[in-house]
Amino acid sequence: MPWQPVWRMAALESGGQIMALPADGAINPEWRLYARSASDDKAGVMAILAAFDALRAQSITPALNIKFIFEGEEEAGSPHLGEIIDLHKGLLAADAWIICDGPVHQSGRKQAVFGVRGDVNVDVTVYGAKRPLHSGHYGNWAPNPAMLLARLLSSMKDDAGRLTIAGWYDGVEPLGEAEQRAIAEAPAYDDELKSQLGFARNEGGGKSLLEVINLPSLNINGMSSGDVGALARNVIPTTATAVLDLRLVKGNDHRRQVERLIDHIRRQGFHVIDHDPTDGERKQYPMITKVIARAGGYNAERTRMDLPVSVAVIAAVQSTSTQPIVKLPTSGGSLPLSIITDRLRSVTITVPIANYDNNQHAENENIRLQNLWDGIETMAAVMTMKPKF
Amino acid sequence: MPWQPVWRMAALESGGQIMALPADGAINPEWRLYARSASDDKAGVMAILAAFDALRAQSITPALNIKFIFEGEEEAGSPHLGEIIDLHKGLLAADAWIICDGPVHQSGRKQAVFGVRGDVNVDVTVYGAKRPLHSGHYGNWAPNPAMLLARLLSSMKDDAGRLTIAGWYDGVEPLGEAEQRAIAEAPAYDDELKSQLGFARNEGGGKSLLEVINLPSLNINGMSSGDVGALARNVIPTTATAVLDLRLVKGNDHRRQVERLIDHIRRQGFHVIDHDPTDGERKQYPMITKVIARAGGYNAERTRMDLPVSVAVIAAVQSTSTQPIVKLPTSGGSLPLSIITDRLRSVTITVPIANYDNNQHAENENIRLQNLWDGIETMAAVMTMKPKF
Repeated sequence: MPWQPVWRMAALESGGQIMALPADGAINPEWRLYARSASDDKAGVMAILAAFDALRAQSITPALNIKFIFEGEEEAGSPHLGEIIDLHKGLLAADAWIICDGPVHQSGRKQAVFGVRGDVNVDVTVYGAKRPLHSGHYGNWAPNPAMLLARLLSSMKDDAGRLTIAGWYDGVEPLGEAEQRAIAEAPAYDDELKSQLGFARNEGGGKSLLEVINLPSLNINGMSSGDVGALARNVIPTTATAVLDLRLVKGNDHRRQVERLIDHIRRQGFHVIDHDPTDGERKQYPMITKVIARAGGYNAERTRMDLPVSVAVIAAVQSTSTQPIVKLPTSGGSLPLSIITDRLRSVTITVPIANYDNNQHAENENIRLQNLWDGIETMAAVMTMKPKF
Repeated sequence: MPWQPVWRMAALESGGQIMALPADGAINPEWRLYARSASDDKAGVMAILAAFDALRAQSITPALNIKFIFEGEEEAGSPHLGEIIDLHKGLLAADAWIICDGPVHQSGRKQAVFGVRGDVNVDVTVYGAKRPLHSGHYGNWAPNPAMLLARLLSSMKDDAGRLTIAGWYDGVEPLGEAEQRAIAEAPAYDDELKSQLGFARNEGGGKSLLEVINLPSLNINGMSSGDVGALARNVIPTTATAVLDLRLVKGNDHRRQVERLIDHIRRQGFHVIDHDPTDGERKQYPMITKVIARAGGYNAERTRMDLPVSVAVIAAVQSTSTQPIVKLPTSGGSLPLSIITDRLRSVTITVPIANYDNNQHAENENIRLQNLWDGIETMAAVMTMKPKF
């Protein structure tokens, strides 16, 4: 593939403009850029732009029409994307939408991902007394909302981490043959990953990470009641709150999944409301939970791996790597891709570029330089692919 | 009791100096002073000083020698009180120590309290992966420390709120006849209290508040993992922390109670350490908890209600009130009174003055003015009591 070095050089030139290369050019590819959104999704945007600049600089003409769309509200559930698509259906029509988001495989191998999980966040608040109480004078008599919340959350999973919420796994669309083969062919990396991440036992009752992400999940993003550390005092807090992240796979509906959660909370004896309790409600119901599904929930999306465009994308990404690339039926992560496929006759395929250990969404988010450079190549390859429709 | 109005006037005069009475004297006794420590324990200190000023102003000579000791480290576990007593045993010798701390009965009736619970705080931290992980890519595969902590905390109590930690209630010294009678005679106030505090069902499986505070307890003061509210993100937190407040009754030892807690945590499958886990520990143990008992734990203390000095204190407090006063074998709250009784041949009796709804230790701590004024009278009565030794 004699064109590869040309791309690499052009990509580096273009990347150099973005990254303000030092005069001696001594950049270590293992260095990382640390910044909010460094990998999710500034790296993706920059890789696409740098690849396009590189193709233009080399006067390479793609065999396909390429349209670019950069959407800045994805982390907030893309509340306006549907409206934009509705207003510009002709302009945005396409055989496929190629999405540059998320991490490559943990082993470092490049990846093509044919689905995303749906997502909805839910705030759960449990109530104790109306005012903070001295934990000595009232503790173990007045209800402690932290303990009530702990008991409620515990009721949602069994010892192996399997959700015990009735109907949680109902309706999940089974994987096709190509998808099952792709999972079987993916590198076995769980043990290495556990060692790197510093834990000895995973949830999932013996299932691998790739199997687990093909199931709907429930994660506690945050949990808070009273104060800890130096601010802790001997009080019974008035409320306890958890933020839950529900991931959905093909076949789930985000509204129905939230209903299942609410039904489960009711079955634990809680009166479920959508506001802070009134005095009357406090008097009437022994246990009260406020449950609010945050706006912006959406469903999963999955594209068949044996479509011509799927095969072409796999070939394009594979052409930039000497190692076999990893093909995933779905990412563990979410993008509101159903907003696209509900409105346009199109499919979505995700080609991620970020390093897996990028602290995405968390402190010290980063992009590894080599991933950014490799990502520019990947994007250029995808832009110049030739699907056999 | 013709001397009462004199005291009341003197107390008000003295209180007036402290509180900067407006020119027209129009103070509503239901007003409250809001300030950090307003009731715990500035009110107690000020009531003692105002009562003493009032006695001096009226040239009333107590029948007993009175010594004053004001200790400013009680909320931190009185780390230096023992040393001070050891250094000044002669100076501090006394037939009884009368402590002015804590609230009067919820009904507003005055109170004499013959014991305090012991107290020890314990920090519990549970670990997930070494770095925050994307909840979509790793959720329900990587362990979630918030869920692990929720399960651990839930395991500590049954549905009725009774501690399930093995041995938790062992060794509790039974109440004597006078103590049991005092509890039976106390006003039934739980329903009114629940209505005021805004909850329909208390913990304790049918036991009254006064019964419950005669048992060792475990309260969650605070609980935290990741972020909630506007700061919440789709991550798996790296740690989850709870601060526990263990209250002890006569017969418990604070070190032994912490050991029971640690044994319980071990029985739930956790490896218990006193430091952040090393990589080796993370590799070896599937579930790890750091448990730290904070310094300053101490045991409960209880004085018999039928001692001559106990009878005299009850009579003195009763002499300032037309309503029957409430006599409690123990407060729900704690003071390190065992530091005193371990070192001196003495007993301790607590005569509280604060309103029960004082938000002690919490936001908006306050003292009700009528409680402060009544407290001055109470202190003056105790200072002039005549025990029959």
